[in-house]
Amino acid sequence: MKIAIAGAGAMGCRFGFMLMDAGEDVTLIDGWQEHIEAICKKGLFVETETTQKYYPIPAVMADDAQGPFDVVILFTKAMQMDAMLKSIAPVLASAKVVMTLSNGLGNIETLEKYVKKETIYAGVTLLSCELEGPGHIRATGTGNTELQPIASHNSEMETHIIEMFNRAGLNAHISENVLLSIWKKAAFNSVMNTYCALLNCNVGEFGQLPMALELATLVVSEFVQVARSQQIPLTEEMVLETVRKVFDPRESGHHYPSMHQDLQKGRLTEIDYLNGAIARIGLANNIPVTANLLLTKLIHAKENQ
Amino acid sequence: MKIAIAGAGAMGCRFGFMLMDAGEDVTLIDGWQEHIEAICKKGLFVETETTQKYYPIPAVMADDAQGPFDVVILFTKAMQMDAMLKSIAPVLASAKVVMTLSNGLGNIETLEKYVKKETIYAGVTLLSCELEGPGHIRATGTGNTELQPIASHNSEMETHIIEMFNRAGLNAHISENVLLSIWKKAAFNSVMNTYCALLNCNVGEFGQLPMALELATLVVSEFVQVARSQQIPLTEEMVLETVRKVFDPRESGHHYPSMHQDLQKGRLTEIDYLNGAIARIGLANNIPVTANLLLTKLIHAKENQ
Repeated sequence: MKIAIAGAGAMGCRFGFMLMDAGEDVTLIDGWQEHIEAICKKGLFVETETTQKYYPIPAVMADDAQGPFDVVILFTKAMQMDAMLKSIAPVLASAKVVMTLSNGLGNIETLEKYVKKETIYAGVTLLSCELEGPGHIRATGTGNTELQPIASHNSEMETHIIEMFNRAGLNAHISENVLLSIWKKAAFNSVMNTYCALLNCNVGEFGQLPMALELATLVVSEFVQVARSQQIPLTEEMVLETVRKVFDPRESGHHYPSMHQDLQKGRLTEIDYLNGAIARIGLANNIPVTANLLLTKLIHAKENQ
Repeated sequence: MKIAIAGAGAMGCRFGFMLMDAGEDVTLIDGWQEHIEAICKKGLFVETETTQKYYPIPAVMADDAQGPFDVVILFTKAMQMDAMLKSIAPVLASAKVVMTLSNGLGNIETLEKYVKKETIYAGVTLLSCELEGPGHIRATGTGNTELQPIASHNSEMETHIIEMFNRAGLNAHISENVLLSIWKKAAFNSVMNTYCALLNCNVGEFGQLPMALELATLVVSEFVQVARSQQIPLTEEMVLETVRKVFDPRESGHHYPSMHQDLQKGRLTEIDYLNGAIARIGLANNIPVTANLLLTKLIHAKENQ
């Protein structure tokens, strides 16, 4: 299949080279010129646990992207989603499937402004990856990927996509409740990303603070109330279980979440699509969301500094 | 009068040398050995806008303090108050007046555990001072001092103390609502100290953030609700008016609040007697205090790092 990956950061590149390795016709689309130029010139440099290799994946700037593509996979950060969708409008027009695997809340709503609901797939992946520099990623570990068409099921297309993803090692399955998974991941990130960014520490250091779980619970309890108002059956325990797991230094303890990296590098963060989304929906529905509101403003304050 | 100043930090030293200058018999009491030794050896070195001078004020370690004193003035930090009162028990026994001018909420309650209510004066001073190092303060600017006996009025003693303070340039008057002033100052400090410490900035830098007033209001609105449950007629506007004033860089914009300094130097902060006190009283009275609770835990997290 002809596949476009829009938002070729760490995760977009990881999906890109794995799908290419499985024989698909992949094109990377991004807005970072230095990165695109590096990939065009020498290929995408991929380090894994055991190999180092250049992948000659076609790569174009978002404004230059042209279809047709069968599948467009969006890994664009939530705050750049709207601009990306505007840029690649010609690409979207002919796509049979437009899939968002981006983190945060609100991406599906943004997508619905630009493409037909029937073509939209939403998903969550637990794979991870690091962008080391222009044209260079480090892809280690593994994880599952969950997908769901958000309008109605089309079993032929679903089977095709799942088969292709699994051939590429992406451990994919069709989910019946992808929204719950998206909210669960957003709640997890609203704890880890936000507190590690604010306290300037990695996941393990945060987890070792005696009040870490209390801080997490302040965020998650509001998250759960807001989720229920949206018919998402999220529970505190679903999120806190995952939180406790990564506090273990043998897990991802040494990892600095992306929001920490964003603040360190003076970039805007995804806060408005994590704690900020909860604050927004909560205020609109008269649900107390003071912790998420305060954290959103504190991260914006850090961005301003 | 024989006056003991317990807690001879910046403010204790400032009151000490000003009362000595006015002819009173002053002794400084503190727990910081290097500071007490410096004062004993060379005197207290005081810089003002126009002068630099050594004051030969007697100074003793808290455990060695002996009375009798007519007046004991406590400038001990709230979190050290209990330990200080235990150390100077012999001094307190004979004092006619025990006065707390320390910042934060809960000092009067702590004092009541150790001395007769009839001897307690509570107060607030808007004078400020910086401790430059052992035995060395910088005392600039001026400000009013408000005092009130917390049990019943004794006009002879009050007149005497006010006359003495004013002779020393401490701009004192008897207040009819010192608790309101204490809560107002605590609310102000719960905004300025806490956010500047958390965001690692000075007052002016905090004030220039576009969300500064929203962040302030999240703290103050809870403060006001908790104050009302304690019959303290605090309003949001009383606090926010003062907050707005110091945001002006021509005011104290370049000032780093003491909590910022405490965190930078790895010391414990007064957070439990500011936002933390509001969280505690609020939770006990079923008043929502999420912002103050979250900020308290974040500052404790910073102390732990």
